[in-house]
Amino acid sequence: MTAIDRPTSEPEVPVVDSPPDARPVGWSHRHLLDTDVLSWADIELVMRTADEMRDVLARPIARVPALRGRSVTILFYEASTRTRVSFEVAAKNLSADVVNIAAAASSIAKGESLVDTVRTVEALGAQMLVIRHAVSGAPYLAAETFGGSVVNAGDGWHAHPTQALLDLYTMRAHLGESSPEGGSLDGRSLEGRKVVILGDVLHSRVARSNIWTLTAAGADLWLCGPPTLLHGFEAWAARGAAAGRRFQVTSSVDDALRDADVVMALRIQRERMASGLLPSLREYAARWGLTAERLALARPDALVMHPGPMNEGVEIAPDVAVGAQSRITEQVKNGVAVRMALLYLLAGVAPHGGGE
Amino acid sequence: MTAIDRPTSEPEVPVVDSPPDARPVGWSHRHLLDTDVLSWADIELVMRTADEMRDVLARPIARVPALRGRSVTILFYEASTRTRVSFEVAAKNLSADVVNIAAAASSIAKGESLVDTVRTVEALGAQMLVIRHAVSGAPYLAAETFGGSVVNAGDGWHAHPTQALLDLYTMRAHLGESSPEGGSLDGRSLEGRKVVILGDVLHSRVARSNIWTLTAAGADLWLCGPPTLLHGFEAWAARGAAAGRRFQVTSSVDDALRDADVVMALRIQRERMASGLLPSLREYAARWGLTAERLALARPDALVMHPGPMNEGVEIAPDVAVGAQSRITEQVKNGVAVRMALLYLLAGVAPHGGGE
Amino acid sequence: MTAIDRPTSEPEVPVVDSPPDARPVGWSHRHLLDTDVLSWADIELVMRTADEMRDVLARPIARVPALRGRSVTILFYEASTRTRVSFEVAAKNLSADVVNIAAAASSIAKGESLVDTVRTVEALGAQMLVIRHAVSGAPYLAAETFGGSVVNAGDGWHAHPTQALLDLYTMRAHLGESSPEGGSLDGRSLEGRKVVILGDVLHSRVARSNIWTLTAAGADLWLCGPPTLLHGFEAWAARGAAAGRRFQVTSSVDDALRDADVVMALRIQRERMASGLLPSLREYAARWGLTAERLALARPDALVMHPGPMNEGVEIAPDVAVGAQSRITEQVKNGVAVRMALLYLLAGVAPHGGGE
Repeated sequence: MTAIDRPTSEPEVPVVDSPPDARPVGWSHRHLLDTDVLSWADIELVMRTADEMRDVLARPIARVPALRGRSVTILFYEASTRTRVSFEVAAKNLSADVVNIAAAASSIAKGESLVDTVRTVEALGAQMLVIRHAVSGAPYLAAETFGGSVVNAGDGWHAHPTQALLDLYTMRAHLGESSPEGGSLDGRSLEGRKVVILGDVLHSRVARSNIWTLTAAGADLWLCGPPTLLHGFEAWAARGAAAGRRFQVTSSVDDALRDADVVMALRIQRERMASGLLPSLREYAARWGLTAERLALARPDALVMHPGPMNEGVEIAPDVAVGAQSRITEQVKNGVAVRMALLYLLAGVAPHGGGE
Repeated sequence: MTAIDRPTSEPEVPVVDSPPDARPVGWSHRHLLDTDVLSWADIELVMRTADEMRDVLARPIARVPALRGRSVTILFYEASTRTRVSFEVAAKNLSADVVNIAAAASSIAKGESLVDTVRTVEALGAQMLVIRHAVSGAPYLAAETFGGSVVNAGDGWHAHPTQALLDLYTMRAHLGESSPEGGSLDGRSLEGRKVVILGDVLHSRVARSNIWTLTAAGADLWLCGPPTLLHGFEAWAARGAAAGRRFQVTSSVDDALRDADVVMALRIQRERMASGLLPSLREYAARWGLTAERLALARPDALVMHPGPMNEGVEIAPDVAVGAQSRITEQVKNGVAVRMALLYLLAGVAPHGGGE
Repeated sequence: MTAIDRPTSEPEVPVVDSPPDARPVGWSHRHLLDTDVLSWADIELVMRTADEMRDVLARPIARVPALRGRSVTILFYEASTRTRVSFEVAAKNLSADVVNIAAAASSIAKGESLVDTVRTVEALGAQMLVIRHAVSGAPYLAAETFGGSVVNAGDGWHAHPTQALLDLYTMRAHLGESSPEGGSLDGRSLEGRKVVILGDVLHSRVARSNIWTLTAAGADLWLCGPPTLLHGFEAWAARGAAAGRRFQVTSSVDDALRDADVVMALRIQRERMASGLLPSLREYAARWGLTAERLALARPDALVMHPGPMNEGVEIAPDVAVGAQSRITEQVKNGVAVRMALLYLLAGVAPHGGGE
């Protein structure tokens, strides 16, 4: 666990129309495997670079030459639309060359090891590797082998760092002290804001990565769900408190939602029913679903968020999903900007060039 | 049903090397969901723009910058080679950025709703959405949500408008009064030409979309197939006649083919056998297959067409499929030009820019 | 079987930054279906062009405009990561437009014939077709129909010519008389070098294509494996000897490996067990697997190669796969350069332009 250091001066934001290695910007990470190693200065640099990328996205032709000639391989061992396409669009907006590899359609089915695949992908020219894998820790194994930068696009129940950063970016845009237009960095951006993550926390890599960023941002974080789906998080909360990462764990939806500034519902995996951890989708919806009635407990302008894809009518009611408070499509849009920012920053650190 | 208006003056054809919004060209449709809403002037504009695109395809580098910076997402819920690749090549020839999403390889498998997927795809930056779906009407639902242009690439049994337009384009090139080299627009291009659609009309979105364009073009249209696979079309023919959309329905192959100018065989879906609508592939081939012997009933220079993919030896004999009268690969080639024309025209209407 | 002619003067190497048809380079093949029709001059031209491509890969932006405006379609009826991506990267590095078609996600599942698919792909604009198919000979059938160039990316047990050429390229870089820096062409590059191909030779298209190139290069070639997996190769060796293509066939691993300069292990297909041709993976590994102990029989600096994907612990021990003598990832890297060279040379011969 890293210290949550606070910068004393404003970080230099990169000029994103230039190559990422044109000048130093204070970013030192070669890989993005989880949010737990990011300092507050790192996080704030991602946020401010993402602001720049939002400006790029608003241009008539949303493209900068920053990663021209760089090869980004997107290697997904799990099906995904939004995350895969988000990375693809982000990389192409930076003028990178993109190769997509879907596990189902690849010789990975032939039993080749992950490490061998990573070695092969690198030999084929990849300089950045975006990887999603069903096994927690797989991107760490990839990073030990791969000569360039590895970005974790979701590994098992473990981590989904780009999701956590786009979630923070979305909250900050509405609640943060430091708005996109500039502003003070004296405090962390969600200081004193009550943020609730509601649902199957146990199996959620989104929740795990969000714990690090949201506590770093100073949020009053509440994890809420059925007791069977919070297992182990009370112990984490106790350890976290000792290290200055404070969050609450509760099974009371009412306690969690009362006066919340943000409510993020998590996807219920239908396959959890079989394991006996959940009674039925209907019962889950009745007891834990984010309905308009429950949302009324939160602050009137509370943000409604969801990492997607949604089971509408289960963890979130359809009218809430598309209601006035919903920021769900905004999350998707911000995802492209945040991933552009991350690829840009990582490219400034990663060794590259010459294919040798 | 729209009026089949005839332009009194020649439509202005766009200069396809310019951006599509450079000047008005008389196209007003934001989406292309079916051919039933296209006026004759609309159809003629597509044909003439496709002529321009054929010229582009004949250049050493078949690319114009018309859609540079525009994002086209191709979202296919059904497997396809020719249609998916045709749209991909068409969009790339116009310099658009293309994202492919295949349902089987995506989180659509996780049960996300179509509307949620469309919302996500738009938030990821798509400005034009090309969609194929097994459910009739799905593209209409998409168009209600999507902020840009939706193109129907085939929905259930309902419609396949780009196929109908490329079919018309192919017939017009050989039979039309208004040839690609220019010519009069006094009459509709297939006036007095006998066009036969032969096969499983009941389940064919190709047949349905062709009814609108071919009657608009003034063709003497005949639908022919086993009585079980023509169900409901006699009633449509009666209604159509009242509205000036005249076509014949018959189960007599001889009556249909006699003196035909065009014979279009439809694909037989092998899965129809199970439903009892068809006796066997062998019997279908014997009674309804387009053989050289049957084709001899048509005019000597009659065009042989098929939307593909073919079951050679079932609905069409192999020697007919590749014979001198076959225009089947020409249809595929024209498909790229027609889809370029449509994307170009739609892009002139669709709201775009700035990703906001 | 072609004559293994030797050039009397050094072949002209193309200037790979120019269009491939800018000037003649002595390459006359329109297709690359197997290595058996390549003369030694052809092979040497591929090697020297690949040297140029390695230089391109070493540039900060590894791209030349040689195939700008050319369309390359990669049509794979079998799953693959390394070969599919290698061709995709190679074509993109040459600035070609690339279309990927995976059989599983295409209407090929609907029963369309190969010839019809090839005709369609050409009508959609493809000028070069890279094809992989489970049926031996399929690329030859494609070449009879396709108007441009066909490249065999692996067909059944029959041939995998680009793999054989990248294997030769990798051996030549370490062992050849004519080094990349230039050098004499008086002799064939592997004259007197002992090269061993170890494993399931019977089902290996890699082995078959390598026989042609390695005997052309003058190697002392040994095929080694279980007797059941060498069936028919003794007869071939006898015929080959008469035609000046000399190679050994043996089931003695010790005889084969002793003093070898190169040991190439072949992938064991797990599905061979069912056929009774192999006892078990464990027994195969024990008797034929390339272990450090066995490798010690070879020369101290012998190259270890494998076409991938590997079953580590079966046909090759993990420590050997990543050991100091392993050239396996170098093979992958060279594969991109060799495929760039081949696409470049073929594009100089293939008819193209104008899409007509």
